[in-house]
Amino acid sequence: MEDRKPLRVGIAGLGVVGAGVVGLLQRNAAQIAARAGRPIEVVAVAARDRARDRGVDLTKVTWAETAQDLTQRNDVDVFVELIGGSEGPAREAVEAALARGLPVVTANKALLAHHGADLARMAEARGVTLAFEAAVAGGIPVIKVLREGLAANRFSRVYGILNGTCNYILTKMRQEGRDFADVLADAQKLGYAEADPTFDVDGIDAAHKLSILAAVAFGTDVAFDKVHVEGIRHVSAVDIAFAEELGYRIKLLGIAALTEAGLEQRVHPCMVPVDSAIASVEDVYNAVVAEGDAVGTSMMVGRGAGAGPTASAVVADLIDLARGFSVPTFSVPVAAKVALPSVAIDKHRGAYYVRLMVLDQPGVIADIAGALRDEKVSMEAMIQRGRNPGEIVPVVLTTHETDEAAMRRALTRIDGVPAITEPPRVIRIMEQL
Amino acid sequence: MEDRKPLRVGIAGLGVVGAGVVGLLQRNAAQIAARAGRPIEVVAVAARDRARDRGVDLTKVTWAETAQDLTQRNDVDVFVELIGGSEGPAREAVEAALARGLPVVTANKALLAHHGADLARMAEARGVTLAFEAAVAGGIPVIKVLREGLAANRFSRVYGILNGTCNYILTKMRQEGRDFADVLADAQKLGYAEADPTFDVDGIDAAHKLSILAAVAFGTDVAFDKVHVEGIRHVSAVDIAFAEELGYRIKLLGIAALTEAGLEQRVHPCMVPVDSAIASVEDVYNAVVAEGDAVGTSMMVGRGAGAGPTASAVVADLIDLARGFSVPTFSVPVAAKVALPSVAIDKHRGAYYVRLMVLDQPGVIADIAGALRDEKVSMEAMIQRGRNPGEIVPVVLTTHETDEAAMRRALTRIDGVPAITEPPRVIRIMEQL
Repeated sequence: MEDRKPLRVGIAGLGVVGAGVVGLLQRNAAQIAARAGRPIEVVAVAARDRARDRGVDLTKVTWAETAQDLTQRNDVDVFVELIGGSEGPAREAVEAALARGLPVVTANKALLAHHGADLARMAEARGVTLAFEAAVAGGIPVIKVLREGLAANRFSRVYGILNGTCNYILTKMRQEGRDFADVLADAQKLGYAEADPTFDVDGIDAAHKLSILAAVAFGTDVAFDKVHVEGIRHVSAVDIAFAEELGYRIKLLGIAALTEAGLEQRVHPCMVPVDSAIASVEDVYNAVVAEGDAVGTSMMVGRGAGAGPTASAVVADLIDLARGFSVPTFSVPVAAKVALPSVAIDKHRGAYYVRLMVLDQPGVIADIAGALRDEKVSMEAMIQRGRNPGEIVPVVLTTHETDEAAMRRALTRIDGVPAITEPPRVIRIMEQL
Repeated sequence: MEDRKPLRVGIAGLGVVGAGVVGLLQRNAAQIAARAGRPIEVVAVAARDRARDRGVDLTKVTWAETAQDLTQRNDVDVFVELIGGSEGPAREAVEAALARGLPVVTANKALLAHHGADLARMAEARGVTLAFEAAVAGGIPVIKVLREGLAANRFSRVYGILNGTCNYILTKMRQEGRDFADVLADAQKLGYAEADPTFDVDGIDAAHKLSILAAVAFGTDVAFDKVHVEGIRHVSAVDIAFAEELGYRIKLLGIAALTEAGLEQRVHPCMVPVDSAIASVEDVYNAVVAEGDAVGTSMMVGRGAGAGPTASAVVADLIDLARGFSVPTFSVPVAAKVALPSVAIDKHRGAYYVRLMVLDQPGVIADIAGALRDEKVSMEAMIQRGRNPGEIVPVVLTTHETDEAAMRRALTRIDGVPAITEPPRVIRIMEQL
């Protein structure tokens, strides 16, 4: 077996993940060769800084000038793209590799979210693999599970905690009773959040991943622009405390659900029952839940990011390639894709948590209740903790399942009540877990 | 794509799982063909009762006289064994199929636990696939995840809740404060436990599955006879209540761990921290946790048994076959297997929960503490709830990490204390989750 021809890898991008891939291939070389049926060797790399010590042995690899150059080498059997970004060098190099008929392994969720459909078409036209296990929740082999392990199922819903930074922030906010900005600053110091945290805390990273999961699970085109996205900036310590009191935890979820109207894709903070399995997924861990017609509910939990988990996913893709295994990019060939109408968020049906800041005076609750009644939104519970006539107090209510559009109309009315001093804060509730 | 040659399936055994496979292949035929690249069709079956209505359309299939006959048909591309049992017709038919070079898909954990090594050798000699995703936790594609999705990792430990019947019983005992025998009787009425529950409640079924998981994860031979097995018959309602008080839940775990001495394989009741993710896996759900050097901790949760989840796993294996994907039976070729010394249970190191029934009289606690001290077992906590001089009361203690051998010697001493009225009940504690 050891005399079988090695799979020769070219890696573009040698940040922590790239160095992690090189290190993992070296450290576990014997086991990986046994499992893959042949050795997997990094033969060439491209990265900006050649001098930096990355803690791995690069003495035997060839340095290419650019990622593009790497894709044109005849001693490379597979191109690994770890540059990142939906445009520029990453996109150009992946396209160049596919155009040349070179298989590609990438961890680039932004690239796939924006150009996945086109890239899948290119890969299929050349009959080569475009693999991306590392693009979604590196520590969870979710692409393989949806595309192969649960391939017999028709899925009704796939959802999960897809951003470790947000989950870390929400976990700390709950455990320590602190506010968003405060915990974010700490996370940045610890390296769990970037200096510019926008992609993470505004839900964009989770939306990238969700659009990829939805394409794989439902056999449809990646449609990032159809994902409704809300982040966690508006989740406050007081909401987290009320959630606890009501028996929930707040998680940033990405949810893709097939309804009679089509495919719902949404990323937003969500209240999940405290005793649900997904509620116990804390800190930087990610989770993905798949609901299939045969399997029922299947959940996977693991680290979402970091050098180790991401390298694990990249190398798993390389082992598949070494074994000669290839599947259509998004589960099914391009011609077999189904076109699913996208369902706008105002067509969503669900239960809601609403927090109002209210000037405590007689008649306010009646005004709120009246607004809900007029829009046929049925209230499930209301909490007004403490009475401080003349002061501003939080009033929290939860609803039974209702139409998002009706909820929004009710909120507009409520916002018009003079004693309401701030815009209502709304968090969707997910009951059926 | 639809004009590609179908994969023709022969199924032996048409119980709930066999009928489930036929039904799933029919119900999701179009999607399965799209994902597999060609249709998958059941062309022949073998089962004792031809007349029984199984709720699926069998009008177009050929009935073979026996499972053996099915393996000899030229119109069958893959043999699916759903008969069960480690010997007899199941074993004979699987061996006949492999000997003929016919790929096999099976859900039979007992067969693999007892004869996995031989069957893998036969499959490899003929260059055919022996697939068994359905043998372990049908609702969790754990074989694929360990063998492919996490293939880059060296595993230190793989463990999980591998028997849904036991998890159901332990969950109900906790939730309802009832005793084992009582809940078992209910589970039998509901069909969650068999009339003869031995395989489930005595841990044998979990041990079958654990030995298969260990072989896949560690690239070693299946060694069912090396698994230390304890069931849940001795877990009492009082232990479950004390566990709760100490911050634990009791789960029947199967644990395969690589230590410096070799491979530990054990199935026994275990106290897991109540806030750990695995503690939240309740009812008939299974869970598997893999700890790998690159990925860290990755957990999967799903239904362990039942027609739907098991059929989902069988059909996933068929889709892999239709796609032309084949991997060595237990992750690596027979020649690349590693021989791992098996570590006996008395070499185990861990923390312990001990419950004693004690005649409440002065000096007893000193005798117990003395026995522990003499064997260098360090006590972590002790609970003696209520004082009833002259009566028999439970005394519960937990230890710090210690050698199982020392613990056993201490227990022998304690059992010799005259005021101890029953053999000590011991449950291992798993802290590092």
